Amino acid sequence: MCVNPGMAVIIGNELLLMESVGHNVLMGFKVKRVLYQAKSPYQYIMVAEIEDFGKALVLDGLIQSSERTEYIYHESLVHPAMVLHPNPRRVLILGGGEGATLREVLKHKTVEKAVMVDIDEMVVEAAKKYLQEWHQGAFDDPRSEVVIEDGMKYVEECLKRGEKFDVIIMDLTDPYGPEVSKGLYSREFFSKLSSILSDDGVLVTQAGNSFFYRDVYDMVLENIRSVFKHVEEYMVWVPEFGYANNFILASKVHDPRSLKAEDVNARLQERGVKTKLFNGEYYEALIKMPIIRG
Amino acid sequence: MCVNPGMAVIIGNELLLMESVGHNVLMGFKVKRVLYQAKSPYQYIMVAEIEDFGKALVLDGLIQSSERTEYIYHESLVHPAMVLHPNPRRVLILGGGEGATLREVLKHKTVEKAVMVDIDEMVVEAAKKYLQEWHQGAFDDPRSEVVIEDGMKYVEECLKRGEKFDVIIMDLTDPYGPEVSKGLYSREFFSKLSSILSDDGVLVTQAGNSFFYRDVYDMVLENIRSVFKHVEEYMVWVPEFGYANNFILASKVHDPRSLKAEDVNARLQERGVKTKLFNGEYYEALIKMPIIRG
Repeated sequence: MCVNPGMAVIIGNELLLMESVGHNVLMGFKVKRVLYQAKSPYQYIMVAEIEDFGKALVLDGLIQSSERTEYIYHESLVHPAMVLHPNPRRVLILGGGEGATLREVLKHKTVEKAVMVDIDEMVVEAAKKYLQEWHQGAFDDPRSEVVIEDGMKYVEECLKRGEKFDVIIMDLTDPYGPEVSKGLYSREFFSKLSSILSDDGVLVTQAGNSFFYRDVYDMVLENIRSVFKHVEEYMVWVPEFGYANNFILASKVHDPRSLKAEDVNARLQERGVKTKLFNGEYYEALIKMPIIRG
Repeated sequence: MCVNPGMAVIIGNELLLMESVGHNVLMGFKVKRVLYQAKSPYQYIMVAEIEDFGKALVLDGLIQSSERTEYIYHESLVHPAMVLHPNPRRVLILGGGEGATLREVLKHKTVEKAVMVDIDEMVVEAAKKYLQEWHQGAFDDPRSEVVIEDGMKYVEECLKRGEKFDVIIMDLTDPYGPEVSKGLYSREFFSKLSSILSDDGVLVTQAGNSFFYRDVYDMVLENIRSVFKHVEEYMVWVPEFGYANNFILASKVHDPRSLKAEDVNARLQERGVKTKLFNGEYYEALIKMPIIRG
């Protein structure tokens, strides 16, 4: 695209944050003020106040989540995987620097340990300082462990230690993002993730968009299918992304389609989970709604 | 917003069509070439080839539908209402100048007459000439009648003549669009529409977006609720809109929630309806998926 991602454009009296929605589509958000800007070893980081959305975390020019709407993405990422597992005690989050994924995981009373591994300390620090509405104390929960490290390296260490998780949540850069993210969606890596999952473990990943980046999306799906028996795709409109975001849910044992609305609601209630959006009916709708590929 | 809707912006070597997605959000689509441009008495009309989307109809600077993706909007608009009625024979379409709504209606073998009323002859003529992929012969179907007239006036005439319809489909400008469209979403007009519906008739309207234009959307919903007993909202991501579009389905007799996936599939099969996206499972997902308001 002709505009650099994250480029700020001033038109008339307005400052616009321009971001890519696909190779050939741009979106412009009206910026009220910029609260924080920095360059980490991994990416450009910005926290800005965006008209209609409140505060937003912007990485390499792409809005990751906004104060008003982050619940849509984070609830949709976390809870389908969490409810699919009958008793998730140990959870691994790869990425998720804002702390909102961690917040949603900790809502499940079954959770004894939630490890969040993010490569970029500066993102986590910015979140701690500017994005309190996202993590809401999740970083201070005694069940939380935050590890600043490359997720691929962390998984290798788990393999060596024989450490296992009931649920793994991948809240990472898009598969069509920076070169470094490619390995995170490879068959080899999914196979390693499968090895550090308990036998009936559940994995979920955000997977970008299957309409604008169909080829890469289909490759990620294929890689997951080669490792897991039960694989289900779902798609959720995320206002600050300008598109519906895809997610892929996988397990060797638990079939996402076998879980009904009433089972989901029962598990949420048992575990004391309160949400804004997610419930049994929403879960069923997600599973039934077809993915838009083209 | 600081950019006029429909403004074309040239950045580098690229021609971008900039459109409003909300009061404070813009979207830019890469234009390959402009096939047709004109000003009718009602609006600016453009047919352009858009990168990733194929041909697109643009009215007053807003993409109405694109070659590659129009099926998502049109199938989602038409079929829930059509399947909710057990035997839709007479159908009224308000707006829908591209002819794709008419095409989807005519797929139901039960239909004996489909009247499409569009105010803007120039849109219909542009569609006939440039958007063959949309109407696919629907205008020439002996069951079709195309009336160039103000929809409100046409409805008055139906009232006088005592003419009734089984299904009414409103495929009009957004309720927050031009001033003239406001009356089309008023309580008074919904009440008149109800009077020209058969007793067990079904109405559906596209309703813009409940996130970016929540106040107007809620007013439309309230107006419909004041007239119909059963009212159901649903929401579908439409790539060329940059958001999920809302729809409202209503009937005095038929409860949308009482119709199950298997009933929908049975009706589609009986009526010989073939679709790309819509089926019983999709219908259930639409009904179950909550609307995003904020």
